[in-house]
Amino acid sequence: MAMENFKHFLVVLSVAAAAGLVSIIFVLRWVLHFREGLAWDGGPAEFNWHPVLIVIGFIFLQGTAIIVYRIPWTWHRSKLMMKFIHAGLNLLAFILAVISMVAVFDFHNAAKIPNMYSLHSWVGLAAVILYGLQLVLGVGMYLMPFTPASWRAAFMPLHVYGGLFLFTSVIAVALMGITEKLIFSLSNPKYKDSPPEAIFVNVLGLLLVVFGALILWIATRKSWKRPSEQILHTLHTDGGVEDSSNVGPALSELSDVPDEETCGDVRKRSCKLDDQPN
Amino acid sequence: MAMENFKHFLVVLSVAAAAGLVSIIFVLRWVLHFREGLAWDGGPAEFNWHPVLIVIGFIFLQGTAIIVYRIPWTWHRSKLMMKFIHAGLNLLAFILAVISMVAVFDFHNAAKIPNMYSLHSWVGLAAVILYGLQLVLGVGMYLMPFTPASWRAAFMPLHVYGGLFLFTSVIAVALMGITEKLIFSLSNPKYKDSPPEAIFVNVLGLLLVVFGALILWIATRKSWKRPSEQILHTLHTDGGVEDSSNVGPALSELSDVPDEETCGDVRKRSCKLDDQPN
Repeated sequence: MAMENFKHFLVVLSVAAAAGLVSIIFVLRWVLHFREGLAWDGGPAEFNWHPVLIVIGFIFLQGTAIIVYRIPWTWHRSKLMMKFIHAGLNLLAFILAVISMVAVFDFHNAAKIPNMYSLHSWVGLAAVILYGLQLVLGVGMYLMPFTPASWRAAFMPLHVYGGLFLFTSVIAVALMGITEKLIFSLSNPKYKDSPPEAIFVNVLGLLLVVFGALILWIATRKSWKRPSEQILHTLHTDGGVEDSSNVGPALSELSDVPDEETCGDVRKRSCKLDDQPN
Repeated sequence: MAMENFKHFLVVLSVAAAAGLVSIIFVLRWVLHFREGLAWDGGPAEFNWHPVLIVIGFIFLQGTAIIVYRIPWTWHRSKLMMKFIHAGLNLLAFILAVISMVAVFDFHNAAKIPNMYSLHSWVGLAAVILYGLQLVLGVGMYLMPFTPASWRAAFMPLHVYGGLFLFTSVIAVALMGITEKLIFSLSNPKYKDSPPEAIFVNVLGLLLVVFGALILWIATRKSWKRPSEQILHTLHTDGGVEDSSNVGPALSELSDVPDEETCGDVRKRSCKLDDQPN
């Protein structure tokens, strides 16, 4: 990555990390300062694990998993290790999402509030189920050594699109959840009277949008992609081209034409990484 | 576009069109059958223009504008004409979005409900303002004949990313709006009691998500891109390459590396259009 490109990447990554971390601080302050705190007692404090675990897991960790291949100081690590980190972060995000749903069901059941009536719950549950499917298919395709390279390449556009689509959907679901929770929990003053909690949590919503926007920007910049093993080898040794059939195309490429096919030769791929503006 | 690729495109386009049109029918049935109908009287029937105009304009027309370059039976038309159609659809969507906002402000003011307190209103207003900016910059960059081709190419990644990001944001804002409206307007039975209106409008929300997902899929398939004028000319005449500096790269390319740079030669570009599986 050329120096200017690297600086641009670093700025965007830093702002994304800041937006994500401040979101986590905001959601914790929301439930600890404005709401009933955290507990596992079937009451409102158990519900509060829902937004906390969603922001930490389903948004921050999922966003991190998406861009983990883009971080240049991991490029000397093996692709396989990075795949494990990518899958591990997504698995952790999935587990936290499931726990966060259990918290809501527990709270609803104890308070005799119906489950699964809102658009938030419909899209949210669909997102969790599809995310689980994405995880299973992702592991089957890219971590099982016997999966043919042709299958990996053919599935990659769907894997990448599915990942970005689910990440975006989760943020949209979170915005609906914030809307619901502020309407239901603010009574005197109400949401429409804009008490400090309403403003504070609206800002949390904006932070989630900014975090999502930056992760999607990073994930869709071709010139920020991790070079394939082949290129890394060439750059390090300035030598021949080794077989990369067990590596598969890099993740996070929102396109249906893998790089290897459009620009097969190493010089061209390398040029794309180093010479393009932004 | 090879025949199999074309069939795949046709299926996705048809399902997207169906989801979009059924969404419009659903939002009309919502306000005409379940709600107070449509009027411009400061009352709830004026508010009802808000969801109707958003779904028709800000979602369906914007989505159409995004993929208008991808429709193969427009490829024999000049790029300039397609740019005018793209800009015209977006302008119409913007005007309808502004009118739909006026309807809400009128309704709120008459009913003495505060404006701009919800996350829905914050993100929604930001989306309208940024959409206006996108429109002005888009016209300045791609419809003003004196704009240098280098500026057009440099701005293209931001134009494409901004367009897809705003489209996605508008759908997220609509989901928040549906959530708000169902909570506020359903009282006996309430939203949580899942009356027919609640189920019906939740389904509208799902339809909007499906429409959005398919538009984003179409917009991000490289092999479905409109060939550049250069390629079209070559394909038609099987002859030389003409200057395309006044054309600029095709829109709807979610990447920071214009095709012309990665694969400058016509045969390669043509191969990408016709021969890639997806």
